[in-house]
Amino acid sequence: MSMQPFLVENRGILLAYDQGLEHGPTDLNERNVDPAFIMRLAADGKFTGLVFQKGIAEKYYDGKVPLVLKVNGKTNLVKGEPVARQICSVQHAAEIGAKAVGYTIYIGSAHESLMLEEFGRIQEEAHRLKMAAIAWIYPRGEAIKNDTAPEIVAYAARTGLEVGADAVKIKYTGEVESFRWAVKSAGKTRVFMSGGPKAPSEADFLKQVRGALDAGATGLAVGRNVWQSADPIKMARALRTLVVENRSVEEAVRA
Amino acid sequence: MSMQPFLVENRGILLAYDQGLEHGPTDLNERNVDPAFIMRLAADGKFTGLVFQKGIAEKYYDGKVPLVLKVNGKTNLVKGEPVARQICSVQHAAEIGAKAVGYTIYIGSAHESLMLEEFGRIQEEAHRLKMAAIAWIYPRGEAIKNDTAPEIVAYAARTGLEVGADAVKIKYTGEVESFRWAVKSAGKTRVFMSGGPKAPSEADFLKQVRGALDAGATGLAVGRNVWQSADPIKMARALRTLVVENRSVEEAVRA
Amino acid sequence: MSMQPFLVENRGILLAYDQGLEHGPTDLNERNVDPAFIMRLAADGKFTGLVFQKGIAEKYYDGKVPLVLKVNGKTNLVKGEPVARQICSVQHAAEIGAKAVGYTIYIGSAHESLMLEEFGRIQEEAHRLKMAAIAWIYPRGEAIKNDTAPEIVAYAARTGLEVGADAVKIKYTGEVESFRWAVKSAGKTRVFMSGGPKAPSEADFLKQVRGALDAGATGLAVGRNVWQSADPIKMARALRTLVVENRSVEEAVRA
Amino acid sequence: MSMQPFLVENRGILLAYDQGLEHGPTDLNERNVDPAFIMRLAADGKFTGLVFQKGIAEKYYDGKVPLVLKVNGKTNLVKGEPVARQICSVQHAAEIGAKAVGYTIYIGSAHESLMLEEFGRIQEEAHRLKMAAIAWIYPRGEAIKNDTAPEIVAYAARTGLEVGADAVKIKYTGEVESFRWAVKSAGKTRVFMSGGPKAPSEADFLKQVRGALDAGATGLAVGRNVWQSADPIKMARALRTLVVENRSVEEAVRA
Amino acid sequence: MSMQPFLVENRGILLAYDQGLEHGPTDLNERNVDPAFIMRLAADGKFTGLVFQKGIAEKYYDGKVPLVLKVNGKTNLVKGEPVARQICSVQHAAEIGAKAVGYTIYIGSAHESLMLEEFGRIQEEAHRLKMAAIAWIYPRGEAIKNDTAPEIVAYAARTGLEVGADAVKIKYTGEVESFRWAVKSAGKTRVFMSGGPKAPSEADFLKQVRGALDAGATGLAVGRNVWQSADPIKMARALRTLVVENRSVEEAVRA
Repeated sequence: MSMQPFLVENRGILLAYDQGLEHGPTDLNERNVDPAFIMRLAADGKFTGLVFQKGIAEKYYDGKVPLVLKVNGKTNLVKGEPVARQICSVQHAAEIGAKAVGYTIYIGSAHESLMLEEFGRIQEEAHRLKMAAIAWIYPRGEAIKNDTAPEIVAYAARTGLEVGADAVKIKYTGEVESFRWAVKSAGKTRVFMSGGPKAPSEADFLKQVRGALDAGATGLAVGRNVWQSADPIKMARALRTLVVENRSVEEAVRA
Repeated sequence: MSMQPFLVENRGILLAYDQGLEHGPTDLNERNVDPAFIMRLAADGKFTGLVFQKGIAEKYYDGKVPLVLKVNGKTNLVKGEPVARQICSVQHAAEIGAKAVGYTIYIGSAHESLMLEEFGRIQEEAHRLKMAAIAWIYPRGEAIKNDTAPEIVAYAARTGLEVGADAVKIKYTGEVESFRWAVKSAGKTRVFMSGGPKAPSEADFLKQVRGALDAGATGLAVGRNVWQSADPIKMARALRTLVVENRSVEEAVRA
Repeated sequence: MSMQPFLVENRGILLAYDQGLEHGPTDLNERNVDPAFIMRLAADGKFTGLVFQKGIAEKYYDGKVPLVLKVNGKTNLVKGEPVARQICSVQHAAEIGAKAVGYTIYIGSAHESLMLEEFGRIQEEAHRLKMAAIAWIYPRGEAIKNDTAPEIVAYAARTGLEVGADAVKIKYTGEVESFRWAVKSAGKTRVFMSGGPKAPSEADFLKQVRGALDAGATGLAVGRNVWQSADPIKMARALRTLVVENRSVEEAVRA
Repeated sequence: MSMQPFLVENRGILLAYDQGLEHGPTDLNERNVDPAFIMRLAADGKFTGLVFQKGIAEKYYDGKVPLVLKVNGKTNLVKGEPVARQICSVQHAAEIGAKAVGYTIYIGSAHESLMLEEFGRIQEEAHRLKMAAIAWIYPRGEAIKNDTAPEIVAYAARTGLEVGADAVKIKYTGEVESFRWAVKSAGKTRVFMSGGPKAPSEADFLKQVRGALDAGATGLAVGRNVWQSADPIKMARALRTLVVENRSVEEAVRA
Repeated sequence: MSMQPFLVENRGILLAYDQGLEHGPTDLNERNVDPAFIMRLAADGKFTGLVFQKGIAEKYYDGKVPLVLKVNGKTNLVKGEPVARQICSVQHAAEIGAKAVGYTIYIGSAHESLMLEEFGRIQEEAHRLKMAAIAWIYPRGEAIKNDTAPEIVAYAARTGLEVGADAVKIKYTGEVESFRWAVKSAGKTRVFMSGGPKAPSEADFLKQVRGALDAGATGLAVGRNVWQSADPIKMARALRTLVVENRSVEEAVRA
């Protein structure tokens, strides 16, 4: 299925807002705790896509920005090998108006096979309903020492291709060269860099994004680095300049 | 789906009576052990809703007060990480006359993902049958040191919003300010304070409820603080004054 | 659904014969090992009901005495937290001619939630097919020190009511007063005392039954105390006198 | 359902050949490794039934001897509490031409309840399709010290009756008296002695079979003691003489 | 079902390319990381079949070489007893154009029964859709000391026959004689040698293949020894000469 609904100039910037479930409201403040704020930000900031869990989509989604419905999730309160099962049916995601479903697979977890199987079913169902299937692939579990090591990130990217994801969301390795290998490993599966926790400075973050793009990434999924920013619209503009207009970090900062 | 059937003046007081399964009859006495007593109390005390497990609803429910059917549950005899699975189908709850289903999710439990998944299916089915889906969200498991810590309560509230609950039942944090954050985290998902074990005095309990309301809660789900009271109807009147008429604790005590 | 098919004068005596699976043939002797002997005993002894696993019902049941089909079961060879899953479908029980299904729930077991869920489905299906659903509720597992302690027995009784059993089979507490509380906790769910292992004397056993009846029980489910008896028909007559005719232990012994 | 297709003079000799999966080819030699050899042996040796896993039945079965399709199985490479799940659907077994399905239940295993449940479904489905359901009942797991102890063998036999098997395959206890009790415990469920590993001498083996028959068994299921024999046809003739013609060991040896 | 689509002169050479999921991109280089390169190689190298996971098949498969769709898989990041569950439905494999499905069973794993059961369902469904079912059988788990020991390899082969695989992919034992026994144990199930990791020299590898063929194998499934080769087309030609034309290693090297 196509990622076209989420692309402008063949690039994409997804505004991610599922942290309320994944990390809890400690990630949020008085302003961005309100999904309505995020809805406006997505439209005003010209994001090419928006990522919600079903509850927020049902109550706040207005259709202005294409929606990725995250169909599994978990809290960070649980210890042990990670697992997140399906919370939202693909059919329901379609009824809410989503153009894609998102699903997290913790490769390396003792529960990996359960998530690979579930993603397998979801991907087929999504395609039948003409929706894209995006895999968040996060290496975890006792065997994973460093989840941004180049060979681990490339493995995550490749897993996305092998299991039939239309796009894969993975962490940045820190360098263009090693990330280029990850992108190459993903083949025709589009690569979105994971925004991750708030970076020390805006420029630091934009440099990472630039690196990912130079390595061949289609774009990024970003949350905290936008909506925890003092001026989210300015950050959105910077990202748009960098990603969609394909400019330099310097031009993006000045945008 | 709407919580309207359970609201008066946009507020709600749910009489909870699933403790027979959750805690056993040690919570009960010669009078309140009889569900028929609770049925009358719900009507006479003008509660806006009633919470039963299926067995009690099937044998005693008379339709006078809107029903929340609790569709999962467990005894407190089991040790280890908590889990409660679905005991009553959503279709059956509808046939009994329920206007909402209730489901407990123990976030933090090793079995969390199983309950998130099950709630996900139940919520969609309930909405198809025009019933509300209410989540009892209780943080539990080895990672949870204090389940009324503000960040934990806010996490519970937010989980309710993210997974699509129409209302969430959570514990009170003890202070208005921190509970306000929990209510804000829940967004358009209505917050009901959990009544909890019998408070030392009636006034103590009413002060907590007042705090929750001042923080933005829609109301409360209360059991033992009403039906273990020496004068349940008086307690019901006090709660009605406080919650529905939105008066002070002093006025409620005198009501 | 109604327990009427199993009641005479609003009382019931169920002849239980699922010990072959639950305990193995060490409970049996040359005579009572034969289900045909039990079939005749049920009719001749005027029992109001009969309890079989599916295999025995399929090969021996003749329709003379109303049948409870036990739909789960296990051997006593397995160690660890007890679990017994469904062996007979409700539809099949109906086709065999059963008027009720029986299901054992080991509350307190680490597998409790699995059995509560399974009973939940079975109960709804049984009621759709106009059969009663009877719960054998046995507290077990590492948290249970004494399964005839009054609060534990009352918890078992209450669980039966909460989960929608038409009748519950529980152990006797040993005293009328405490068992009365268990019966009260069960509400409109009928209470059948569990016959248990063979009592030291016939009179001892009858005294327990008399106590249970005085506490409000509907009757009992009895196996070994009848068919291990030297004169099962005499024992049956004694029980009938005690339970259905509601006489004293002395009258029953003389019957 | 009836075991009639497998009986001659009300007795049965089933040629078992599922050891390739259960034990691996170390049980086999250059000749008997070939299922075609077994097919011919079954016909030439006038066995009354044949036991195959699905793969062998699909590729070699010619319909000359009635087929029991073994629908679960496992290798002996796995350690820990034994479990074997369904590999062949009942419908598929019927399409292959089987007149019965076979299923192994490891009573005493920590996974016992899973197998009892699965057998329960399979038995009902087999009967709907007019096939017999035969239970291989093997006591295993940490609680089982001696799986040919009389009370354990009798328990296995009784389990077959209770769960609705048309026939049960169990180990021989070593003596007629104790095995008679096992047969009696099985009631109307027919008992087939399990052939087991190759006996020290032919006469030893035939004596065991004679003992089982004298105890009331319908016959045996035999593999290695036939097809590992130097002269399988002679062994088949001996068994036929012993079992179907009901002669003595001496007559059988001379046959 | 027939393996015919994959055979030329009754022999087969399957180009395997599922290592991206099973081992990660560390197996790959700049050239062979691209599935399009593999697609061309399969056609130009005249392979008789091609093995892909669903994602690669969906995005790259052009129908020129018959496809085996691998329907389960796992990463090598997970520790503990191995398990790989179904990721691609059989129906979907058929829609992609596959002529066979491939499934890995880790015999000896604590999860063996789960995979045997899943393969059982997949095999029946594949045959209904006129596709072959190929089993990758890999002995693993704490009981397996040496997975190329003759008795272990023969057990793997036999398992393929018993569970109904049309072909089985197993490791080479290292000698013709012992592998001949494995092939014999597989009966009418065709045996494909597993190519395994890159051999020290091309001749070493070809000798192994020659040994497997001399032992009766139908062919091999090969990945790294071809696409990690400096001249994959030359290697393909050598294999074709060896396997399809049934020539000697010397002739194959010169081809």
